Amino acid sequence: MQPFFAQRFEKVEPSFIREILKVATRPEIISFAGGLPNPHLFPVKEIEEACQAVLQEQGAAALQYATTEGFAPLRHYIAGRYLSRHGMEIDPDNILITSGSQQALDLLGKVLVDEGQDLIIEEPGYLGAIQAFSVYQPEFRPITLGEEGLDLAALDALLASGTSARILYGVPNFQNPSGVSYSAANRIAVAERLVRHDLLMVEDDPYGELRFEGEPLDPIAKLAPDNTVLLGSFSKTVVPAFRLGWMVVPTWLRKKVTIAKQATDLHSNAFSQQVLHRFLTTHSLDAHLEKIKAVYGRQRAAMEAALARHCPPGVRWTRPEGGMFLWLTLPESVCAMELFDLAIEEKVAFVPGAPFYVRPEIKNTLRLSFSCVDEAAIEEGVQRLARALRKVL
Amino acid sequence: MQPFFAQRFEKVEPSFIREILKVATRPEIISFAGGLPNPHLFPVKEIEEACQAVLQEQGAAALQYATTEGFAPLRHYIAGRYLSRHGMEIDPDNILITSGSQQALDLLGKVLVDEGQDLIIEEPGYLGAIQAFSVYQPEFRPITLGEEGLDLAALDALLASGTSARILYGVPNFQNPSGVSYSAANRIAVAERLVRHDLLMVEDDPYGELRFEGEPLDPIAKLAPDNTVLLGSFSKTVVPAFRLGWMVVPTWLRKKVTIAKQATDLHSNAFSQQVLHRFLTTHSLDAHLEKIKAVYGRQRAAMEAALARHCPPGVRWTRPEGGMFLWLTLPESVCAMELFDLAIEEKVAFVPGAPFYVRPEIKNTLRLSFSCVDEAAIEEGVQRLARALRKVL
Repeated sequence: MQPFFAQRFEKVEPSFIREILKVATRPEIISFAGGLPNPHLFPVKEIEEACQAVLQEQGAAALQYATTEGFAPLRHYIAGRYLSRHGMEIDPDNILITSGSQQALDLLGKVLVDEGQDLIIEEPGYLGAIQAFSVYQPEFRPITLGEEGLDLAALDALLASGTSARILYGVPNFQNPSGVSYSAANRIAVAERLVRHDLLMVEDDPYGELRFEGEPLDPIAKLAPDNTVLLGSFSKTVVPAFRLGWMVVPTWLRKKVTIAKQATDLHSNAFSQQVLHRFLTTHSLDAHLEKIKAVYGRQRAAMEAALARHCPPGVRWTRPEGGMFLWLTLPESVCAMELFDLAIEEKVAFVPGAPFYVRPEIKNTLRLSFSCVDEAAIEEGVQRLARALRKVL
Repeated sequence: MQPFFAQRFEKVEPSFIREILKVATRPEIISFAGGLPNPHLFPVKEIEEACQAVLQEQGAAALQYATTEGFAPLRHYIAGRYLSRHGMEIDPDNILITSGSQQALDLLGKVLVDEGQDLIIEEPGYLGAIQAFSVYQPEFRPITLGEEGLDLAALDALLASGTSARILYGVPNFQNPSGVSYSAANRIAVAERLVRHDLLMVEDDPYGELRFEGEPLDPIAKLAPDNTVLLGSFSKTVVPAFRLGWMVVPTWLRKKVTIAKQATDLHSNAFSQQVLHRFLTTHSLDAHLEKIKAVYGRQRAAMEAALARHCPPGVRWTRPEGGMFLWLTLPESVCAMELFDLAIEEKVAFVPGAPFYVRPEIKNTLRLSFSCVDEAAIEEGVQRLARALRKVL
């Protein structure tokens, strides 16, 4: 038949990152391109035991349809962790389990975003959020993300300009792609703007538990709870395959987001929610996180040291205190897409920065992931990258 | 802050079915209201073994992020089953694993449905589809579903009227809520209209494997593959908690649906996909289905017999050859919502028909589910229902 598409999907094309990641999986290539957590740190045996315990204790009940909001004990566990880590008192009724935090972005787009409406996003911004929100056709308004957080002068200028924005999307901890975090002062300043301008922040926090350096900072949601939807994920802390994340929503948003979730998939995998809850309540998540942070911290240090040793002058990089990513800024004359082809010749891969911008003009940045590459491979990979860089610098 | 919602969500309110189902779970009530598969038939032990085998054999790889399209061996298994059951040759590349078939409806709404565009749906129609598509704001055009299938005269009249519809949504096997199926002749006639009018049918088939009587019929997708998206689900045949279904899409639709899926949740639970595949390839699904069909067939027969024995005159019901539901039509003067309150007094529950209509005027129908109620409770429950009916007839 004659193909047809909804207007919102007529122009959508696959992300070129998918093609890049295909190249990056060739065995001879050292890849800093992926965004995967390190599988050597997955609690495989513990998950196996949890599967067994849930099925032996709950039987068929563990495999039946379940509530849209999610497994109540898991929602209580999440609320408890916000209390112990940040002193935040969150009603478990305001926590909704989602199929990864990616689904939370889709649900928020459905319920909150009108076509043509301004939507404020960090620059560079998380690609998954750009993709999820794009379906609902907002006008993205990028605000530069710097070493201290959002550019407040630019934010104030935008807010003074009569923008139609009601939503600000950001990743205040160890952002993907840049690795940078909002400082404590920046968080306070952002929260103050949310309240003053009646803005809702979508505070996406998949990496907050992965701080291997410095002092933990409270979420912006603690400062402006009614103006924040706080997203979390078990993909980076326990296992990604379960696709389990959550959203903490203000009470005014709870009912409609739940309806949207029900219309989208009825509920998230209920068996995995119970298995995850079993794992979390029979093991120490903190002890497990210590192992992940030790490895990622060592690998981040190795990457920094190698960049300092091998990179030609004119290249700058961020110094993340947690998470999985580090961000390179090249001289403005250099196009990271062209560097990518040279890097593949040298058998090293990264993600060029272009897809993380909603404006196409910025080309001289790239993302390196240190989560899945051991220290020896990091040293070798950075040497290869430096050889490619020298060809363009 | 001041609540705000996207225009598409401003008027959305929770379905009253949720409230009904809460009442129906009170222990003294015999409930024909649920839409759940019978948990006594879940393969609990087999799933436990499959979890163990997957984790012991695949280790951490079973818990990592995975491809958007789904676990390739599971997609091959599904293709193989269409070949053996229906002689349909389907490229596994055209099969996309979804988070239940509910998610397939959401993805199709995203990619295909424009605001204000006509969308043809059975009357009565599946509530989950009405909810999923409603987000994308089509104009629903209902076509009566009768004992033989779609009302072809009404369909032809609509198609001749200059409708903007590109999509026809239907459940040709043991429909939810009515339990009726399209006859072989009706399927051929519908397929012919799809091709002639360049329509796409969303052929939703969660119950097709649950035929306990009569001869299996081929999907409409076999007759008009390029004009059909065929949806399937493991929720009614294996376990619902995994939220695993699939869609068979024509090649022209594959790329954009995959992008939509990626933006929505990256991929469906990859561990459960592997566990399910392990179960399906180490056990006989057919032997498992025989057990389900034997129970549901007996319970359907018990319900019919009890209705014939106890119902006052003027009440008609469908005679499903499979699935989980049976549909009562009351005299036009009777409102099923009022009957519901009387039925709860008698300690029996059902779902009033109203939410299954996109036009509000039809009030004299109701749905009974026989999947989870044993024969003795069916006899007692129908007696109670008949007592409530006698108060209004």
